[in-house]
Amino acid sequence: MSLGLRLYYDFLSQPSRALYILLSANKIPFERCPVALRKLEQKSAEYRKNVNRFGKVPCIVDGDFRLAESAAIYRYLSREYPAVAPHWYPREDSLRQARIDEYLSWQHLNIRADVSLYFFHVWLNPLLGKEVNAAKTERLRERLDAGLNFFERVLLAGGERPFLTGDTISVADLSAACEIEQAKIAGYDPCAGRPHLAAWMASVRDQTNPFYDEAHRFVYRLAPETIATPLLPDDG
Amino acid sequence: MSLGLRLYYDFLSQPSRALYILLSANKIPFERCPVALRKLEQKSAEYRKNVNRFGKVPCIVDGDFRLAESAAIYRYLSREYPAVAPHWYPREDSLRQARIDEYLSWQHLNIRADVSLYFFHVWLNPLLGKEVNAAKTERLRERLDAGLNFFERVLLAGGERPFLTGDTISVADLSAACEIEQAKIAGYDPCAGRPHLAAWMASVRDQTNPFYDEAHRFVYRLAPETIATPLLPDDG
Repeated sequence: MSLGLRLYYDFLSQPSRALYILLSANKIPFERCPVALRKLEQKSAEYRKNVNRFGKVPCIVDGDFRLAESAAIYRYLSREYPAVAPHWYPREDSLRQARIDEYLSWQHLNIRADVSLYFFHVWLNPLLGKEVNAAKTERLRERLDAGLNFFERVLLAGGERPFLTGDTISVADLSAACEIEQAKIAGYDPCAGRPHLAAWMASVRDQTNPFYDEAHRFVYRLAPETIATPLLPDDG
Repeated sequence: MSLGLRLYYDFLSQPSRALYILLSANKIPFERCPVALRKLEQKSAEYRKNVNRFGKVPCIVDGDFRLAESAAIYRYLSREYPAVAPHWYPREDSLRQARIDEYLSWQHLNIRADVSLYFFHVWLNPLLGKEVNAAKTERLRERLDAGLNFFERVLLAGGERPFLTGDTISVADLSAACEIEQAKIAGYDPCAGRPHLAAWMASVRDQTNPFYDEAHRFVYRLAPETIATPLLPDDG
């Protein structure tokens, strides 16, 4: 029984954008199933029962197989969909695969947490009527600075190679770029003072457009004017 | 150039224990390289330069290949070491593999975070001379309760199957059990009122002993008397 591939996503979710871009860039047909995080649709009993027991986006339903967690979905798609170009997750290259897995695992409690904690406190709390504490904002900004400085200096190895794990783009790059874009909504420019990160983000966008911009249109619109973002055709 | 396999670990680290048990249970020879977290050895410039740039344990060095992040290491070992029994990470079973990947990814910001935040606040802070805030302890306890209740009710599916992803033990079970054991050090009994979790933890221990107890000897000793832990032979 194949019912085709469905992607449950919200463009406000970093890994949702990454999966949307990966599927689109590899020309894999999928049904778009938006889930409105602002309405907490992902927490509904129905969604938990029928789509994702974890109550999160993104999630795929492929035929009758449901799978959550973007890192698991990347690997699943690379096994099950030959259309996924090998450079995204090189299954024939054990060491490169290990390096991608290492990044995706490390990211959760580092770049993802660094960006998300700042984003929630600075951008989401005011929308929810919660106080934004100046000292906490400062602590979270320092944490985010440190995380992105490590990314610039160590993970991008001072510009020695164009992508995180080698000469070609992988799901590690795509996932990382989508996480880092989120900071812009909260008025934080990740590229300022980080030339290697700026060049690398431009490369990720370049390799995945027009889908990168399509998935980030919402981010670009929400970011304050102090943050440079592309002007898309029908934003004109 | 093969220099053999080295494991850098500390038994106070949950994923260090899991890797130690996996290697031991599969009879893979490895050199034991303890890293003393209490002395912050993992943060030293030398360790970052020569072993793990992320400044964490566990890490392996296999010949001249260095790899951090336990989830990445499990997969690497399953590819590179035929001695790893297939049930730990069934590379020929795409759906089961996806389910294991899903758990390992989800765990970071859930069970691992739930347990670690409680452990740090309640057990580590006093050792560092930091204040333990009663209201924060209560919030963290509620979070840990909720996480383990979800584990009991949804992930163990009310006792329907013996292990997280099927009838045989996998790295998801091993990783989860080692995370959950950590709560005992802080005087929290994860098994109290959770019969399926208690039975599942007993199964994981049973399937991996004597290595499970060897890796957890330190946890058992640190746990207060209110928490039932095995009495090991030379604890006499």
